[in-house]
Amino acid sequence: MTPDAGRAGRPTLAVVGATGTVGAVMLQILSQRADIWGEIRLIASPRSAGRKLAVRGEQVEVVALSEDAFDGVDVVMFDVPDEVAGQWAPVAAAHGAVVVDNSGAFRMDPDVPLVVPEVNAHAVRRRPRGIVANPDCTTLSMIVALGALHAEFGLRELVVSSYQAVSGAGRAGVETLRRQLSLVAGTELGTHPGDVRRAVGDDTGPFPEPVALNVVPWAGSLREDGWSSEEMKVRDESRKILGLPTLPVAVTCVRVPVVTTHSLTVHARFEGEVTVDKAREILATAPGVVLFDNPAAGEYPTPADVVGTDPTWVGRVRRALDDPTALELFVCGDNQRKGAALNATQIAELVAAEPRSHTGRDAARGD
Amino acid sequence: MTPDAGRAGRPTLAVVGATGTVGAVMLQILSQRADIWGEIRLIASPRSAGRKLAVRGEQVEVVALSEDAFDGVDVVMFDVPDEVAGQWAPVAAAHGAVVVDNSGAFRMDPDVPLVVPEVNAHAVRRRPRGIVANPDCTTLSMIVALGALHAEFGLRELVVSSYQAVSGAGRAGVETLRRQLSLVAGTELGTHPGDVRRAVGDDTGPFPEPVALNVVPWAGSLREDGWSSEEMKVRDESRKILGLPTLPVAVTCVRVPVVTTHSLTVHARFEGEVTVDKAREILATAPGVVLFDNPAAGEYPTPADVVGTDPTWVGRVRRALDDPTALELFVCGDNQRKGAALNATQIAELVAAEPRSHTGRDAARGD
Repeated sequence: MTPDAGRAGRPTLAVVGATGTVGAVMLQILSQRADIWGEIRLIASPRSAGRKLAVRGEQVEVVALSEDAFDGVDVVMFDVPDEVAGQWAPVAAAHGAVVVDNSGAFRMDPDVPLVVPEVNAHAVRRRPRGIVANPDCTTLSMIVALGALHAEFGLRELVVSSYQAVSGAGRAGVETLRRQLSLVAGTELGTHPGDVRRAVGDDTGPFPEPVALNVVPWAGSLREDGWSSEEMKVRDESRKILGLPTLPVAVTCVRVPVVTTHSLTVHARFEGEVTVDKAREILATAPGVVLFDNPAAGEYPTPADVVGTDPTWVGRVRRALDDPTALELFVCGDNQRKGAALNATQIAELVAAEPRSHTGRDAARGD
Repeated sequence: MTPDAGRAGRPTLAVVGATGTVGAVMLQILSQRADIWGEIRLIASPRSAGRKLAVRGEQVEVVALSEDAFDGVDVVMFDVPDEVAGQWAPVAAAHGAVVVDNSGAFRMDPDVPLVVPEVNAHAVRRRPRGIVANPDCTTLSMIVALGALHAEFGLRELVVSSYQAVSGAGRAGVETLRRQLSLVAGTELGTHPGDVRRAVGDDTGPFPEPVALNVVPWAGSLREDGWSSEEMKVRDESRKILGLPTLPVAVTCVRVPVVTTHSLTVHARFEGEVTVDKAREILATAPGVVLFDNPAAGEYPTPADVVGTDPTWVGRVRRALDDPTALELFVCGDNQRKGAALNATQIAELVAAEPRSHTGRDAARGD
């Protein structure tokens, strides 16, 4: 029996942007998880068409993005730039596929649910445009843990600072850090004003400043009043996912010289008094969360340990010393797995598990 | 005329720990600032005695730490471990010198002022033990900017996250990062769980985890309820310096792969409504502060630009979107200059500028 024979009658999945960094992680994750799919179709820009990529142990030829590419597709995951998603996601939806989009094009559209399966799986069902949005990687790196705490304690306020990995800026971000590290390693750089900048030269890649031996308080593009787009995403998306449209959220996003895995410090204030014991109990049992928190034994998550894993790791759980309603946390999540490819795959699986009348064109028009 | 002749009648300064990392920066700063001192005596452990170090363009021989070493000394700056300072600072004070101590031994002693000249210069005068404490480098990297904002707006709450450089852990910290960078540069490391840890080996120097291609949410030793000593210092010292003994301060301290210059994100809540314009006006004119904040032009401070400079640099000034009484800031300060050697030197200069009856043994008994 060929693998295909056992897949008869199962839904067809497509991946648009299969040749990108997150696309590659999607194919890896699809090869690791329980195989619920019939055909998995790989779609990319015309210049990548004809390439073969491995998924589920088979070589699959990439087809060019076109309307016909969505023929017979039940669910499609997009990982492409905002403007490409903005153009093609509605095309795929009109063709009857449920779209899971990882761009920023639709996340704040009131007719597009923004879904984190551990937090608001129910929201996936109301999708009048046939599109479900996958949150930003920074939001995703913390929101599963916060959703679990919110369900018990009732969140009132968040103050968040990020320590964001360079792969959040894609392959160019990783290549830039690696190039800069080769230039600064083995030197005495980092002790005089501008010495790192002079050593790495003007090519700072997708970053505004050198990122080796440095931290850069900027991610994304400039929004009103000095906010970065990344900071606005963390605030607006957290509110939407948690169903708390007026939650006060203060965010500062900072890039650090880490390849993959975003970290965040979180100051979370709740409706009433909290205890560390209860918080730890919640985090220890929440799906998708690993509590790794024993400073006496040197246990707290760091990107070097968390990278390549699926869960949201939480450590440094403390009650604020001066506010019995607030907790301090340090959270790590792989920005390419839970932060992008894994969450999109989980959403696609949620859709595929719906009674058949909910998938495809019918449900795309809402319920 | 020899340099010495012009220095007759000026106060004698001693530096204890002259051969250490911060000691070296003290000598550099003493060579750069207006020269108000008579003799500058260099003191270190007996094994460093006899070495010659440059200060004010002259070679000065290091003498061994002993009671006699304080003969005739008016002001002495200590940069030695807590236990050495705890033993020898009172000896120097009993010998008639005013001690400026950069260890953690005396900072929270109610009879020892904790001084940042731009914020609470007045506090230096009441020093019944003859000792003035210099704050921790992390506190110092933000407190000048916060002091200026507090003076205008009245601080009500702080939530702070740090991005701390490895030189905060001394020479061993810098050497550890440099060794680890040499091992990871030019590799594909940083994308699989534990690959960085395997590459750098078990020798993580003064840090509990690898610091290259990583961030580590720990600095200092374990205190009650999961707090680190560094986090407690930032809270307790900020309160003491600002004269706000009950100020709520929430802190998470994180080590990053930067050689020198600590960065902090600050969420600061004030008594009433604040405006960004007024905050910028305060920061632009505050002594010891540089406002570097124009994201449209790519202007925000980073450690690579700030290292080696004296001021506290402030950027990313925003009003919290959901709280008109709160500001968000990103602050950078050289942890060895303003964070240690410079502030100690400024305190020593404050003491030296007092009417003569205030210096030496008389003032050491308080006023």
